[in-house]
Formats: sequence, C-alpha cells, structure tokens
Amino acid sequence: MKSTSIHPTAIVSPQARIGNSVSIGAFTTVHDNVEIGDHTVIESYCEIGYPSRNAEGQPLKIGKNSHIRSHSIFYEGSVIGDELTTGHRVTVREKTRAGRNFQIGTLGDIQGHCEIGNYTKFHSNVHIGQHARIGNYVWIFPYVVLTNDPHPPSHMMLGVTIEDYAAIATMSVILPGVTVKNGALVGAHSSVSRDVDADTVVAGSPAKFICETRAIKLRDGSKQSAYPWRRHFHRGYSEEDIAAWMKEFAEKSEQA
Amino acid sequence: MKSTSIHPTAIVSPQARIGNSVSIGAFTTVHDNVEIGDHTVIESYCEIGYPSRNAEGQPLKIGKNSHIRSHSIFYEGSVIGDELTTGHRVTVREKTRAGRNFQIGTLGDIQGHCEIGNYTKFHSNVHIGQHARIGNYVWIFPYVVLTNDPHPPSHMMLGVTIEDYAAIATMSVILPGVTVKNGALVGAHSSVSRDVDADTVVAGSPAKFICETRAIKLRDGSKQSAYPWRRHFHRGYSEEDIAAWMKEFAEKSEQA
Amino acid sequence: MKSTSIHPTAIVSPQARIGNSVSIGAFTTVHDNVEIGDHTVIESYCEIGYPSRNAEGQPLKIGKNSHIRSHSIFYEGSVIGDELTTGHRVTVREKTRAGRNFQIGTLGDIQGHCEIGNYTKFHSNVHIGQHARIGNYVWIFPYVVLTNDPHPPSHMMLGVTIEDYAAIATMSVILPGVTVKNGALVGAHSSVSRDVDADTVVAGSPAKFICETRAIKLRDGSKQSAYPWRRHFHRGYSEEDIAAWMKEFAEKSEQA
Repeated sequence: MKSTSIHPTAIVSPQARIGNSVSIGAFTTVHDNVEIGDHTVIESYCEIGYPSRNAEGQPLKIGKNSHIRSHSIFYEGSVIGDELTTGHRVTVREKTRAGRNFQIGTLGDIQGHCEIGNYTKFHSNVHIGQHARIGNYVWIFPYVVLTNDPHPPSHMMLGVTIEDYAAIATMSVILPGVTVKNGALVGAHSSVSRDVDADTVVAGSPAKFICETRAIKLRDGSKQSAYPWRRHFHRGYSEEDIAAWMKEFAEKSEQA
Repeated sequence: MKSTSIHPTAIVSPQARIGNSVSIGAFTTVHDNVEIGDHTVIESYCEIGYPSRNAEGQPLKIGKNSHIRSHSIFYEGSVIGDELTTGHRVTVREKTRAGRNFQIGTLGDIQGHCEIGNYTKFHSNVHIGQHARIGNYVWIFPYVVLTNDPHPPSHMMLGVTIEDYAAIATMSVILPGVTVKNGALVGAHSSVSRDVDADTVVAGSPAKFICETRAIKLRDGSKQSAYPWRRHFHRGYSEEDIAAWMKEFAEKSEQA
Repeated sequence: MKSTSIHPTAIVSPQARIGNSVSIGAFTTVHDNVEIGDHTVIESYCEIGYPSRNAEGQPLKIGKNSHIRSHSIFYEGSVIGDELTTGHRVTVREKTRAGRNFQIGTLGDIQGHCEIGNYTKFHSNVHIGQHARIGNYVWIFPYVVLTNDPHPPSHMMLGVTIEDYAAIATMSVILPGVTVKNGALVGAHSSVSRDVDADTVVAGSPAKFICETRAIKLRDGSKQSAYPWRRHFHRGYSEEDIAAWMKEFAEKSEQA
C-alpha cells in the first residue's frame, strides 16, 4: 500500500485525521477539524477545513478516493461522500452535504447550507446559493446561479430544488423557491421563475415551456431522442446504475 | 494588545507599513508600497500591493479592522476604508477608492479606476468595470457586470453609476453610461440600457419598468413592502445608521 | 543579459526547459513537461505544465516575452505563441493552440482542445468550451461562454467558430456549432443560436439581426462608424498590422 505523502511545504495540523495513502500537495494548508478518507489526493495551494464560526464545531469530512484540484478551499462543517472530484479554485462553504461521486468544476462556488445527492456533476463556474436541494445524477453547466432571496437583500431564504436527472444549461438563473423536476431541461441563458415539470424543456427569460424533453433528437443522425440522457450518456456512472437504467427503459418500451 | 503576527512562510516587504495587531497568513506576499491598518487580518495565499505601473506610485491603503480572505489580490494605488471584508480570490486593481465597511464576495473582480461608497456590499463573482461610481449601502449580487465601453473595443469609457440603496440582482448587465438611481431594483438576468428611476423595479433584456419598489411585498406573510429594504434588513449596519433610517421612515409615515 | 531568476520558494522541475532571462515567482510550481521561451515572466502561485493524462505526453510550450500573472494554471499539452499576456487565476487546459500576442483576462477558463489565432484578446472571466475555433484579432468580453454540447449531457461536441475581428460583448452565450463571422458584433447579454453574418450586429435571447456594424456610430461626437473597430482602435497591435489595415481602408474608400 502506498503510504500517505505530505509535501514538505504543506502545513498540516497534527489534529487533522488523515486516512491511508492520502497525498497532500505543495503549499497546501490542512486545518485542525478535518477528516480525509483513504486514497484521497489533495493538490497544491488548497485550504482544507477552513475555520468557520458557522460550522458550529462540525468537522469537514471528505470521503475516500477523492481528488481535490489545486487552489481549492473547503470549509469545516461540510460532509462530502466518497469519490469527490473537483476542478481548480473550488470553494465549498460550511454545512454542504453531498453524496458519492460528486463533481465540481473549476471556480465552482458552493455557498453552503445545501444538500446534494449522488453522482451530481457541476461544470465550471456554477454558483449554488444557500439552502439549495439538489438530487442525484443532476447536471449543472457553466455560469448557472441557484438563488435564494426573493426580494434581495432580505432575511428570507427560499432555496431552489433540482430533482434527479435534471440538467440546467449554461448561464441560467433559477429564481428563489423554484423546483426543477425530475429529468427536466432548462435551456441556456434562461431565467426560471416557475416550477418546471418533469421531463419538459423550458427556456427564455422568463423561461417558458418549449417541449417535452423526448422531442429533442440526438444530432448524430440516429433520430433517437436525446432525453432521457441516461439512455445514451454513461460516462462516469457505475455499471450498476447503468444496468438499472437500461432495465427501466426496456420495461417502459415493452409497456409502450 | 495582541501584537502583529506574520506567518513564517509569508513574504513581507520591510518597506510595507503594517499597523498594530495585524495578522498575515501563510504563503502571503506583501509588497513594498502598502499601508495596512491596525487589527486587520490578511489570510493565506494573498498578494497585497501588487505592483502596477498604472498606480503611478500611489500606495495601497487598507483601513483598520479589515479582513481579507485567502487567495486575494490587491494592487497598489487603491484606498479602501476601515472594516473591509472580502471573500476568497478577490481581485482589486489600482485606483479603486472605497469607503467604510465595504464587502466583496468570493471571486469579485474590481477592475480599478472606480469609486465606491460606505457599507456597499458585493456578493460573489461581481465584475466592476473601470470608471464605475457606486454609492453607499448598495447591493450587487452574483454574476453582475458593470460595463463601460459603448462600442467594444474602443477607447471610450462610459462608467456606470449606481446610487445609494440600489440593488442589482443576479446575472444582470448594466450597459455603459447608465445610472441606476436611489433605491432602485434591477431584477435578475436583466440587461439595463437606460437609466432606472429611483425606487422603481426594472427587469428583462432590455430591462423595462415593472413597478414601484414598494409594490413588492415581503414573502413572510406580513403584507409589508419589501422595499425600501432598509426598513427591515439591518444585518451588518451600524446602530447609528439604523436609527437614522427608522427616524426617516417614522417622519415619512407621519406626513402620509 | 539579465539571467533567469527563480524565487527560492518556487518548485521548478530540473526537467523543465526554461529559456534565458525568465523570471519565476514565489511559490510557483513548474512541472516536468514544459518549455518556457526567453524573457518570459511567470508570477507567483502559478502551476505551469500541470500534468494531464489527456495531454498524451505533449509538452506545454509558452512563447518568449510572455507574462503570466499570479495564481494561473497551464496544463501540459498546450502550445501558446510569443507575447502571451494573462491576468490572474487563468486556467488553460491541454491541447489549446494559440498564436502570438494572445491575451487572457483574470479568471479566464479555457477548457482545452481549441484553436486560437494571433492577437486575440479575452477580457476577464470568459469560458471557452472545448473544440472552439477562434480567429485572429478577436475580442471576447467578460462572462461570455462558448458552448459545445447541443443536448447536454452528451458525447457530441459541436465547437463554436469565431472569425477574425469579431467581438462578443459581455455575458453572451454562443450556442453549439454556431459561427460568428468576420467582423460581426454580438451585443451584451445575448444567446446566439444561429450563424451571425459578417459585419452585422445581433443581440437578444435568442439573438436577432439588429443592423450592419457600420451603422453604429462612435459616441465621441465624430459621427464616424464605430466598426470596423480596427479603423480607430489600435492599442496593443503591431505597427505592421495597423499599416496594413489603414491601407485596406484607404483602398476601399477609393473604390467607393
């Protein structure tokens, strides 16, 4: 077994609980209140377990087999599952709870006090406002903002809900309290002020119903529907999940 | 009195003028032409007083009781008042002049050559183009861009003006030369090409008049107006300011 | 000749090929598979030649007389011409090919697998999706996103094409497969779903034809057209290019 490797320039608190075969890069700081799972890689210039009064003493927990790229900052008081992957310069604040295989792209800014499921993926530069609730297998693309304040500035926080398999395309804003339902697609450059029905496409500012997601065809000449995307897009998912999806679609197709 | 504390890995110029009880974090660089006020905290990985030809030899001055979070960069040639607070990865270029209690969220990019009043707050990831003039008690939310070039690229710079108490919601663009007047609200995902009247709401792309701000009700069941926001939102303001606001509203209500 | 200067805190691989008179800043990491041209400045906290499986062993090459500002990250497997200039916190991933005098503003995020011509300039915080093809003398302004996936998430990548002299204003999205032709202007806060004709202006979401670019007048009282911008905006271009442009315009004016 490869042993834990800490770069000589890294500053690692002796109180931090660090698993086996962990790698910690140059100039990285690991604060006191941290638990890092086995086989996790933390690259250079990171700040892990950044102290926060709002964390109320809760530790930062990062699951095993994770990979945090350089210049990233994680606050104490968050719990992230196994196989987290990040780009560079990610910020994750306190009281973020995320499941397995969470992916955060470069420059992602997660404001904390939010819940995120398994296998959810954020592309570069997304902004997740506090009190967001994001399901499993969700996709959020660059420059998307999930808001929470219905009349800013105020003390009211109406977090956004994004259900399983939904996809939010580039540069869209989801307004406070909105729910984007299972498998829905929000088109690029949209502002979403009302709930979005399952398996429908909305777009525009304010966003309006465009069509059912299944009406969008793959642009590969196959005439197949592009949605549900999990029919044809499997990169990065478990064989178990893919098999379950295939079974679900086979059953639906028999019923039809 | 707590004495000034400089992390052993920090690189601090002996020419920098550093106040009492200042704290400077790991791997931070403080350049020559810098004045840091008493009791200010500068966290790790920052670059303070970044040399700039455009600063024309003027120092960077940061007021007392300030807090600059990690990975931030301040150029020489800017003057920031007391009690500055920043998120992470903030960039503030030369010839920025800001008042007291200025707040800049994570990833804020202030291009310099601009004026900012007291108690003005920027949420994450705002971009302030050169020659912006921003008043007191202004709120700017994530992914807002204040522009300046009316026909890019050109040599003309028509900065934006944002007056006191105005709020610009998420992912809006203020076009060159536009003034957003006292207490106005720009809705999310808007593109503002004309001046916005005081105490009015505009939204859309191009933004149009929606209503008076007072027509927006708090969504807490109280039936009160959400604006002027300083009637009900006081977090982070001085008791003196709040008392003055309350007096102003009491007088208006007597007159009405 | 000024000799190469490496800050004592920098970590520079002995395998990196570093030119003459290069300067490498504090806390910067230079990995193995790197070629840096003569007279190039790499500032502090950078990561140069970040190892990437997708680079397939190709080196990072940075041309001579370049200037990479602090906190930037360049992956191995990209080739950038002479006189590159960057802002802070730039990310350039593998298989980016760019010409001479390329400029990338603060927070720029270049996803790699793209081609960029000579003298092209990105302002702050642009996001260049994979498979983009960007010509010479192009301008891209803050918070612009070039996309590539027509039905996200999918395996299909239809990169965007931006031809010579085109300008894309702030907070616009160019949708997958779209071509913005020579000298065209995309207005701020637009979403471009169709090809844009040469020397025309489009704006809105979805973007529509507004006018010929020459119909936009300079707002300096001169009544001259603001476009082609290279008639009047020459900052940062070579005398040779400017002379060629002037000759081209003189010939056109004779023909007219």
